[in-house]
Amino acid sequence: MPHLTIEHSGNLDDTDIAGACAALHAVLAQDGAFELGAIRVRAVRCDISLVADLHADNAFFAMLLRIGAGRSDGDKDRIGQALMAAMQLHFAMRLQVPHFALSLDIVENTPAFSWKSNSIHPRLRAAKGAT
Amino acid sequence: MPHLTIEHSGNLDDTDIAGACAALHAVLAQDGAFELGAIRVRAVRCDISLVADLHADNAFFAMLLRIGAGRSDGDKDRIGQALMAAMQLHFAMRLQVPHFALSLDIVENTPAFSWKSNSIHPRLRAAKGAT
Amino acid sequence: MPHLTIEHSGNLDDTDIAGACAALHAVLAQDGAFELGAIRVRAVRCDISLVADLHADNAFFAMLLRIGAGRSDGDKDRIGQALMAAMQLHFAMRLQVPHFALSLDIVENTPAFSWKSNSIHPRLRAAKGAT
Repeated sequence: MPHLTIEHSGNLDDTDIAGACAALHAVLAQDGAFELGAIRVRAVRCDISLVADLHADNAFFAMLLRIGAGRSDGDKDRIGQALMAAMQLHFAMRLQVPHFALSLDIVENTPAFSWKSNSIHPRLRAAKGAT
Repeated sequence: MPHLTIEHSGNLDDTDIAGACAALHAVLAQDGAFELGAIRVRAVRCDISLVADLHADNAFFAMLLRIGAGRSDGDKDRIGQALMAAMQLHFAMRLQVPHFALSLDIVENTPAFSWKSNSIHPRLRAAKGAT
Repeated sequence: MPHLTIEHSGNLDDTDIAGACAALHAVLAQDGAFELGAIRVRAVRCDISLVADLHADNAFFAMLLRIGAGRSDGDKDRIGQALMAAMQLHFAMRLQVPHFALSLDIVENTPAFSWKSNSIHPRLRAAKGAT
């Protein structure tokens, strides 16, 4: 954790999505609540999507952030607002046209039923310790 | 919200999925519980899928509906039944052959940790007000 | 149920993913907690993914298992550990290189808001009864 999965309509172009993901990754990396080695941001293109009144220009970018349980409500609120602010900036032009739906939900996992094996952590922790 | 995400096996064809999505969108649009501008239906094709006894004809169509918290159990039950009924009709032929698994789960979000920016709403609300 | 959805980075190859899914399906089929006809394992390739420190070799394989509510904590723990053990074996070489993040979360559905139509069950139940 954190896992940030984005589902988006097929009428957004890959460059735009890659830039959005880079901005989201930066928010998570800089927040301080998460260990760098645990961050996984990914986007899933949905070639079939039907949005609102089905206007061909309608598009969506839906974020679901899964995090480990135990963070404060204040932490979750700060993280959510930072991710949204980054996307409102990134998609500012789209939000000025009446065809775009941006959203974010945060979901917490259940620690007793969550498992992980992560070989990235030791490398990054060693690098951090060495600086 | 509502967000309806479908994951389906790769052996269903695109035309069939597009038709199913159109029928699901119509159910959500006509129910009355949701604002039109908030509806986002999308399908994710899973090229690798292993179903039941691994018979090559086995297929699945799995719906996950995320909605804002606060609707009554009666509302959720009516919506779920309407979506399922639409798909039981759409996939009637598949359900007569012993290789198809259709499913729906409804999940509610946590309002305090849910954010949205939607530029479609003002357009549709204005159009609605003008009629 | 069970629904096992895997999201994975685009730098894992299809053969490797197919093998992993086969091993996961075998764990679910052999556990005894699930009816064979209900098992659906699928993988979603995420062509855009940003992992940890963004090293090009970084990869992830994230499992989300949705099951019907009502199983004991002991059942869930056993199933989770068995799935993880199978993947730690399957991805043993990757876990020796400092670029791989493997994870599993189990989520339970809400029975009152879960629906299914499954034409596979009668065939497999009949076959089972006939043996």
